Amino acid sequence: MGRVTERRRVIRIRDGAVSVRPDTLVAEEPLEIRLNGKPLAITMRTPGDDFALAAGFLVSEGVIGAAAEVRSIVYCAGATADGQNTYNVVDVQLAPDVEVPDITLERNVYTTSSCGLCGKASLDAVRTQARFPIADTPPVRVEPELLASLPDRLRAAQRVFDRTGGLHAAALFTPEGELLDIREDVGRHNAVDKLVGRALQDDRLPLSRCILLVSGRASFELAQKAVMAGIPVLAAVSAPSSLAVDLAAESGLTLVGFLRGTSMNVYAGDERIALHSDA
Amino acid sequence: MGRVTERRRVIRIRDGAVSVRPDTLVAEEPLEIRLNGKPLAITMRTPGDDFALAAGFLVSEGVIGAAAEVRSIVYCAGATADGQNTYNVVDVQLAPDVEVPDITLERNVYTTSSCGLCGKASLDAVRTQARFPIADTPPVRVEPELLASLPDRLRAAQRVFDRTGGLHAAALFTPEGELLDIREDVGRHNAVDKLVGRALQDDRLPLSRCILLVSGRASFELAQKAVMAGIPVLAAVSAPSSLAVDLAAESGLTLVGFLRGTSMNVYAGDERIALHSDA
Repeated sequence: MGRVTERRRVIRIRDGAVSVRPDTLVAEEPLEIRLNGKPLAITMRTPGDDFALAAGFLVSEGVIGAAAEVRSIVYCAGATADGQNTYNVVDVQLAPDVEVPDITLERNVYTTSSCGLCGKASLDAVRTQARFPIADTPPVRVEPELLASLPDRLRAAQRVFDRTGGLHAAALFTPEGELLDIREDVGRHNAVDKLVGRALQDDRLPLSRCILLVSGRASFELAQKAVMAGIPVLAAVSAPSSLAVDLAAESGLTLVGFLRGTSMNVYAGDERIALHSDA
Repeated sequence: MGRVTERRRVIRIRDGAVSVRPDTLVAEEPLEIRLNGKPLAITMRTPGDDFALAAGFLVSEGVIGAAAEVRSIVYCAGATADGQNTYNVVDVQLAPDVEVPDITLERNVYTTSSCGLCGKASLDAVRTQARFPIADTPPVRVEPELLASLPDRLRAAQRVFDRTGGLHAAALFTPEGELLDIREDVGRHNAVDKLVGRALQDDRLPLSRCILLVSGRASFELAQKAVMAGIPVLAAVSAPSSLAVDLAAESGLTLVGFLRGTSMNVYAGDERIALHSDA
């Protein structure tokens, strides 16, 4: 699946000078995720790690939480009229004893938008769904200096961004700052799903000793995915939204935003941040 | 609906110094869009301009194309158990002669993810759906210098970004550089839907003499929305995806990316860009 980038002809204008050259773009293609053969959701993603993406999506939705709950993940051939395999349709077969969620229209709307009917309802839904309450015992404790060092390490580890400028990145670190895994995708939620799905495949859920770092903003959706994977600390380079902060506060998730240079804002769960002055 | 921003307590760490203060966050809440009373999609959005957002979403989906096709747009009261109006559910009633699309599960998956079963299928879907083929006669022609000036003007016109750092912006300009409208939202696709929906409400579709500028990346979804509104030029401050470029090339949309300083890349439709050297 070496389609992480694609080449296209581009006209480049620099200070009035015009040149024509090939350019490297981040690949974006739809992935249809099927559950036991039935369409569940479609996401626009960067091809690659598709099985992990599908698995992580199902963790985020509360369907699975352990590798043994998945019987198989395969690409569906014959998804086009001429029977070719597009590698854009993945079917996840659950193990026989795993309950298949009721895929009603309403449920489906829920899954594809990753939220509920209203702020209140969706927060409730996450709480009741959560298979892994955030339970880091003893509590994860992170030095601000260590957190501040992570964005540079994320950028150093990003393979594709420098070439295309079009990718979001997400990475898992230990509280001691060891990089465990990194994924890139045109959609930030996909990058997180790929991380979480890979952890599920390795049977490492819940990720109760992990820091999740994302290259962009912290939306409700990303906070929800962290909670569903049992991750205690979510750090974002850019701003969080109001609903992400509310969900973090209600779920016991530590949420750090604007992680830049030696600065950061702690929006929730500050008991996990080693603060040296008396705040 | 003055909920564009919300205040939360934050612990700020700057070079080791810790302080506690209120912080302004971009508001993020779900909006359920109903069509003739039936749930169609849920989007995470920044409250405000919700009727325009719903209208623009329906333009993007090919359901409507003129103000007269909408009978009414209202907030649904009683969306919570205690009967309160959350202002998070909007119902669009179509005029009697407008065909209501078949809201099947498959159709719903399609609309919420804004793409089709696979790259090929979705491109086909957009082509067949398009109510307004891009038909700027005479063709819009834009000076690169003028394009280069637009991002600064977008930033100058953004009202909320400076306070929260969490908003995407989208704006419509004339080919002469006049700012027609600007919208901000936690989701970039919502900002564009709000612009297009407002234009529909003013009966200004198709937007065949407009440049659409977006503050971030140009995904397939944004290119699709431009095509559906009949917009001939889409310019993005950051990178486009491969599928956005493909859709632009197939639809006759001019797609400009990496619009920064005096530089830009033209990925498709360069006949609308006034190039002075012989490329």
